[in-house]
Amino acid sequence: MPAINAERLLSDLRHLRSIGAQGRGVVRPAFSAKDMEARRWLKARYEEAGLAATIDGVGNVLGRSRQAGKALLLGSHSDTQPTGGWLDGALGVIYALEVARALAADKATSGLPVDIVSFQDEESRFVGCLGSRSLIGGLTPDMEQGAMDKDGVSLAEAVQQAGLAGAQRLRVSRERYAGFCEAHIEQGPNLEDTGKRIGVVTGIVGLRGIRFVFKGQQNHAGTTMMARRRDASTALYELAHRINQEFPKVAGERSVWTMGRLRVEPNATSIVPGYADLDLQFRDASEAPLDAFEKVVARLVAEMNARGGVAIEAIPSRAPIPPTHMDAGLQKHIEAAAERHAPGKWQRMPSGAFHDAGIISAALPSAMLFIPSIGGISHDFAEDSRDDDIVLGCQVLADAAASILKSANA
Amino acid sequence: MPAINAERLLSDLRHLRSIGAQGRGVVRPAFSAKDMEARRWLKARYEEAGLAATIDGVGNVLGRSRQAGKALLLGSHSDTQPTGGWLDGALGVIYALEVARALAADKATSGLPVDIVSFQDEESRFVGCLGSRSLIGGLTPDMEQGAMDKDGVSLAEAVQQAGLAGAQRLRVSRERYAGFCEAHIEQGPNLEDTGKRIGVVTGIVGLRGIRFVFKGQQNHAGTTMMARRRDASTALYELAHRINQEFPKVAGERSVWTMGRLRVEPNATSIVPGYADLDLQFRDASEAPLDAFEKVVARLVAEMNARGGVAIEAIPSRAPIPPTHMDAGLQKHIEAAAERHAPGKWQRMPSGAFHDAGIISAALPSAMLFIPSIGGISHDFAEDSRDDDIVLGCQVLADAAASILKSANA
Repeated sequence: MPAINAERLLSDLRHLRSIGAQGRGVVRPAFSAKDMEARRWLKARYEEAGLAATIDGVGNVLGRSRQAGKALLLGSHSDTQPTGGWLDGALGVIYALEVARALAADKATSGLPVDIVSFQDEESRFVGCLGSRSLIGGLTPDMEQGAMDKDGVSLAEAVQQAGLAGAQRLRVSRERYAGFCEAHIEQGPNLEDTGKRIGVVTGIVGLRGIRFVFKGQQNHAGTTMMARRRDASTALYELAHRINQEFPKVAGERSVWTMGRLRVEPNATSIVPGYADLDLQFRDASEAPLDAFEKVVARLVAEMNARGGVAIEAIPSRAPIPPTHMDAGLQKHIEAAAERHAPGKWQRMPSGAFHDAGIISAALPSAMLFIPSIGGISHDFAEDSRDDDIVLGCQVLADAAASILKSANA
Repeated sequence: MPAINAERLLSDLRHLRSIGAQGRGVVRPAFSAKDMEARRWLKARYEEAGLAATIDGVGNVLGRSRQAGKALLLGSHSDTQPTGGWLDGALGVIYALEVARALAADKATSGLPVDIVSFQDEESRFVGCLGSRSLIGGLTPDMEQGAMDKDGVSLAEAVQQAGLAGAQRLRVSRERYAGFCEAHIEQGPNLEDTGKRIGVVTGIVGLRGIRFVFKGQQNHAGTTMMARRRDASTALYELAHRINQEFPKVAGERSVWTMGRLRVEPNATSIVPGYADLDLQFRDASEAPLDAFEKVVARLVAEMNARGGVAIEAIPSRAPIPPTHMDAGLQKHIEAAAERHAPGKWQRMPSGAFHDAGIISAALPSAMLFIPSIGGISHDFAEDSRDDDIVLGCQVLADAAASILKSANA
């Protein structure tokens, strides 16, 4: 089995971290100067590794093997959250590079085609998973139309500024590939909690969202008697608390829901709010609990609206994500590699976070491998993983890649 | 009884409105250029009316009568909310001016001393009721220390900029006055709802505030299982809803409570919030319901903290306002005048909003008169009252003032 170079792996990861570094974290949002600098650096590394490398029209960096046969696509994303951790995305991108180099350096695997990719804008500056969507032909004109970051910069302007306005957008051909594998930090505490070192992802949970809008009447908090009020905040507190009371009754074992963003207007201590809105997001690996949650929401909103007073609207999110299943065949290869290098120290698990693999799985058999996140912390400058876990994960991925490719080209 | 000049009253009100006018509203926060322009204009009007006028070291405009005997102090404030209505404060200031002129013009009352005042910063740019506090000697050094507006301008800088740094701070002598009367728009819908035209204020409701701080753990909304979460927003929704459920059980007939300001961090749809805070404000004309509310809050917070998870702190507001009673003797004079000019069309009522009279009542017998607010709207550009109500209120105040002064100097 091909041996990875642990020193080179960690050194490249740290170099990528240095591009856009802020303290322990990284600020490298999609299409920013630092993001493009990282992509050009990756392209040069891909070429050094003997691959035919391109930065495409949406910023994906793709390195194609010159070997014949069924190829395996490996990769993740190198853009970050506005204040991101150093491993989210970057880990899978450098793993892919190291695995391509390790297989090329081993006579037993040097003829096997490994393509590698760094997707663009997984973190939704403009369009979540922009790069992977584009690569499978799933980026529709209405997704791009009007896509804007929170400062009002349009996607088209960002592409122009990055010097990619004329560049071709690459597509993966389904015939070329045996599949796609993405490695990633877990971004949660489950592996750490159970003392495991590798997660083999069974599926990516589905996600739906609802925005509640509460319309009442703004009033003076001293002179408006309670019976006369139509307080938007009161309705928000009631609905949110009742959702938290009712959802557990219909939830799956791993269902999660969150109401972490809200706005109350004018948000002043002495004013009865006339307007509020609240986002509810809920996730599960299967559709049934998601459907059940929607029914609970509809019942609660109808009941509260029937009372009069504050009018509540429930607007479904424009982009629900259905649960996706990782390819069973690819999982078996990863499990076998995990058992070889970390016997008894791996587990099958769903991914609670969304990933490019969830997009690619619509076009190619896809799989994911997780390594532990220290303290489960992610999307934060403090995000980190142990060096030995980082090295182990890459070796497992290299073995699995070799095994997948041998079996696909047998 | 002295007759007011309705045309002069409305004309002066409209002139004051023009200083800092924005659309139908007025932007004249304390110590702003427009506020100081209004104060200089008022000082000139006070002098025209034969009064000895001064702008004191905190911006109060005081006009003193040259007549001997027990005086009556009349007035309100001419500073406005950041986006204020045209009558809040201004009505009582121009009423005072017109009443002083009307009494001076009538031989039967021309010897009665009417002092008039426009207080500074009732609307809390720096210190709520700064001017009335200063006038009774109730402005303590620690209130001034570090007083800052929301843009970080200090009170000391604002006083300097207004050219008042060296000016004397006036104090009322308790010996000089029979009392203080403040006229104001109701700022609520009660008079309009009951078809009354004059409100005789029995007291100003007390106000207490509590800031709740919720400390949990920020996490990824996809990868953190519900059982492991310490979601600050969940605790906020529960506590707020339970307060809304429990308070009615111990509330007085006119108790009000509001939770109109909150913050959730980082306030993102896909992140479990680790921090939140929420302001609770509650008001009643007597202490008993306020005490009962505090007990409910303590019980709910203790119960939720006993469960573990999110830690809730309840921090009492630094400046609770005790309920104050308006002087019964002064009320009788206003009631009699109201019955003369609007028989059956007036009522006794508490004030749900706070006013300078609440401060002055600690030093002088105080009373308030309300006129209806159209639609109960206040602290808004749309704030308005009917001309005939404006004129009626001033005539009632003039009669009451004459009657109070005659009786005090009998």
